[in-house]
Amino acid sequence: MKKDYIFTPGPTPVPPQVGLAQVSMIHHRSPDFSVLLERVLDGLKYVYQTRNDVLLFTSSGTGAMEGAIASCFSPGDKVIAFAGGKFGERLVEISQAFGLKVVAIEFEWGACADPADLKKALAANPDTRGVLLTQSETSTGVVNDVEAFGSIVAKTNALFMVDAISGLGAVDLKTDDWGIDLCVSGSQKALMIPPGLAFCAVSEKAWKAAETAKCPSYYFSFKAARKSQSKTPPETPYTPAITLVQALDVAIGMIREEGLEAMFARHERLARATQAAVEALGLRFLAKDRSRAFVTTSVWAPEGVPAGDITKFMRNEFGMFIAGGQGKLKGKIFRLAHVGYFNEFDIVTQVAALELTLKRLGQPVELGSGVGAALKVLAE
Amino acid sequence: MKKDYIFTPGPTPVPPQVGLAQVSMIHHRSPDFSVLLERVLDGLKYVYQTRNDVLLFTSSGTGAMEGAIASCFSPGDKVIAFAGGKFGERLVEISQAFGLKVVAIEFEWGACADPADLKKALAANPDTRGVLLTQSETSTGVVNDVEAFGSIVAKTNALFMVDAISGLGAVDLKTDDWGIDLCVSGSQKALMIPPGLAFCAVSEKAWKAAETAKCPSYYFSFKAARKSQSKTPPETPYTPAITLVQALDVAIGMIREEGLEAMFARHERLARATQAAVEALGLRFLAKDRSRAFVTTSVWAPEGVPAGDITKFMRNEFGMFIAGGQGKLKGKIFRLAHVGYFNEFDIVTQVAALELTLKRLGQPVELGSGVGAALKVLAE
Repeated sequence: MKKDYIFTPGPTPVPPQVGLAQVSMIHHRSPDFSVLLERVLDGLKYVYQTRNDVLLFTSSGTGAMEGAIASCFSPGDKVIAFAGGKFGERLVEISQAFGLKVVAIEFEWGACADPADLKKALAANPDTRGVLLTQSETSTGVVNDVEAFGSIVAKTNALFMVDAISGLGAVDLKTDDWGIDLCVSGSQKALMIPPGLAFCAVSEKAWKAAETAKCPSYYFSFKAARKSQSKTPPETPYTPAITLVQALDVAIGMIREEGLEAMFARHERLARATQAAVEALGLRFLAKDRSRAFVTTSVWAPEGVPAGDITKFMRNEFGMFIAGGQGKLKGKIFRLAHVGYFNEFDIVTQVAALELTLKRLGQPVELGSGVGAALKVLAE
Repeated sequence: MKKDYIFTPGPTPVPPQVGLAQVSMIHHRSPDFSVLLERVLDGLKYVYQTRNDVLLFTSSGTGAMEGAIASCFSPGDKVIAFAGGKFGERLVEISQAFGLKVVAIEFEWGACADPADLKKALAANPDTRGVLLTQSETSTGVVNDVEAFGSIVAKTNALFMVDAISGLGAVDLKTDDWGIDLCVSGSQKALMIPPGLAFCAVSEKAWKAAETAKCPSYYFSFKAARKSQSKTPPETPYTPAITLVQALDVAIGMIREEGLEAMFARHERLARATQAAVEALGLRFLAKDRSRAFVTTSVWAPEGVPAGDITKFMRNEFGMFIAGGQGKLKGKIFRLAHVGYFNEFDIVTQVAALELTLKRLGQPVELGSGVGAALKVLAE
């Protein structure tokens, strides 16, 4: 009996009740939808730990990233962007596409962004208008110290923009307390719904910048989104992906029931169990610092084994879809998933499949050693 | 027993099998999804009657409109845009947002765009780079003569961009034969799926323009979309709304089964039945020319009755969501729906509810006269 497992860091598994929330649809200008949208927008504030508005867009997370940059900056504005993975690179690319001057701080894929580098870059570029950082770099599994960066940016006039697409809801992120002015996220990660919705929390400082920003934008215009969402009842400027908003409503209900703190603790526990299994199997991690790396666990393929052999075997043999490497890590790493709708038995299942796969690919594996190590953490 | 009816020109009713296609999700980088995406992109070519690529975006239709403008024009380019309703105005707004010089041809809401006006405007503006027209102006119910416009634009170097969001699949639209270079559409109209996907068919002439276009774009970049969709197997540049693509696959299967010609004939028949009912009830149409107005039927509220009273009564009493007016027509008209997943009994239901509503609002109505008139058309 082959079952299907989406064990990737995005999209992530969708709870059945969330999937079912998409089946029938209400009209987006109906009173019922207004109530639903109001509840969803309120729920997003809870997840974001913010008192500010969270804007909702129908797009992938990348769309809201573009919206943040286009709505709050002008061509020629200087921004410092940290690029230590595929999604950090995307911050650079979008900024360049809109004519910003980008000071790109490239660092090793697998390393954390260094706050000391930010201090240096700010000293060398006192005219910096924005600092752009990825919280959880999905391509490497690294989770950066957003709080440390926020405290540095807060002393400047620059806006602090964070790509929290895969991190929001999985690891702690205090949007307001950490001084995040533009906090972007997406639907298909810890929020447990299918892809198609993107979000951005916007601070007062960012709204002030938006007043004079000159990059063109229409569909992702933050001003237009705020105008519609501020109505009583709230609306979206353009027809939203109604079935996905309905799904999000159910998912946020689940998140509220579990509670944010418990959700973070669960993600940490499942990540530590996965890390323990990887260590027991004698494999090497890509992420150098794993003290916050609770979103996805990136693992080097064993010497002489293309990572694609592992991911393909797991998919073909077990129907288990795990992610390989992206960009320059393609073929070199595979990524174990534990963000979103995961529990301890999903981790056991994933590690068990990995053990069987490595064995079949001729690797020396003591069957059960990875699962055992994971269970030891889970029993704590 | 109050049932829910989405009788609006967007979103439109979703067939149960389409709704159910969203429940479980496959990974967008899986071989199964590649096969599905290939089939969907091929199906879109069928619906568009084009041999060119149709790009797919996760957004509302407005997003693809922005993509077309930003990907194929440069700031300062002159375009002629026809605005005789809310969506024609949007063509003007997006063009202005991206710094294009817009020759806006405004005409009465309810009238058709006049090809003679295009000839005059082209003569006065020989440096025109684009002509922008709404096929089916959802806010008024007017369907413009796209073919006539296309034959005029074909004699120039300008690109012909058509907003076919509510018209595609409902009324004939020969993308290639009519010389449409950029043909935008959306998911929640005749394509019968929930909102969240947008499309654009792109001609070789448009791709050539895209090579030198200088408006900034990233998420809606046509070049990026083409690059991903041209791969074997095809991909999307960013994570797509997977569950909506799955829904679209089912809907396109239904469209292929009915056949495009039969689909157009059904829309015309249901529209004519609705028009006959409206006439029998002594109500006045907004659209002056109804010979192609088969997407939505816009009706002036009877003297002394706010249109909102009609739409509210139908919603509250019968759970039937019909659209009121937009923009300057708010409170003045209501719109009867027959685009997408509609059959003869939906028309009967809608007209019957309208009769009961008018009666209850104190209007002189011979009950059954509207339904009878509709049935006479449907019996032909």
